[in-house]
Amino acid sequence: MSEEAHTVTAACDSALVSAFDLLGKKWNGIILAVLRPGPMKFSDLRRAVGGITDSVLTDRLVDLVDAGLVDREETHTRPNQITYALSAQGSAIQPVLDELAQWASKNLPRPTEKAGVPAGR
Amino acid sequence: MSEEAHTVTAACDSALVSAFDLLGKKWNGIILAVLRPGPMKFSDLRRAVGGITDSVLTDRLVDLVDAGLVDREETHTRPNQITYALSAQGSAIQPVLDELAQWASKNLPRPTEKAGVPAGR
Repeated sequence: MSEEAHTVTAACDSALVSAFDLLGKKWNGIILAVLRPGPMKFSDLRRAVGGITDSVLTDRLVDLVDAGLVDREETHTRPNQITYALSAQGSAIQPVLDELAQWASKNLPRPTEKAGVPAGR
Repeated sequence: MSEEAHTVTAACDSALVSAFDLLGKKWNGIILAVLRPGPMKFSDLRRAVGGITDSVLTDRLVDLVDAGLVDREETHTRPNQITYALSAQGSAIQPVLDELAQWASKNLPRPTEKAGVPAGR
């Protein structure tokens, strides 16, 4: 491998590996995008994401809360209500997701229905 | 779900689902970042990515070539040599990967050694 390749690998690096450790798990990026308008209840989030099971959504929310990107909030009303919201760190990724969506819309074919969000919306 | 949430889901949308269909597969984003300096042979690419097996790298390269992000090039020398290089579409994602790395370096903990690229490089 060239010296230049070595340098770039080192530069692209551990931060990008961290990012893909998280976003390289199916749904995590979509969940962050879907939470943008504001806090959502689990059931609304599941509907908004589309095509995800309860157990997978539960797992992903645990990941995202652990990573500090999503806050789990409990209202002190009766009955208690639990909502999920972007943390400051989770909000900070939104411009990157916008750019990724722009890149994808120019450079990738649209997904088929299998991905949960119907193509062409 | 609120009307606003519906709108944003629709807007964030199928392009982002396409992006994560591809980048949500472990290694794909890293491979695109590693190829930045120029064409690489399979063996050099495997070393640069780190922690990936031959068979997984082969699968991922098929995905990336199919998606039009990587070109498989064959030299007409003897012996023939096959290299992998970013296509124009694959090059176009590099600024987004830079922003993602910047976001991750500010907002995520660094990965442990398990991810293949040593932390702190």
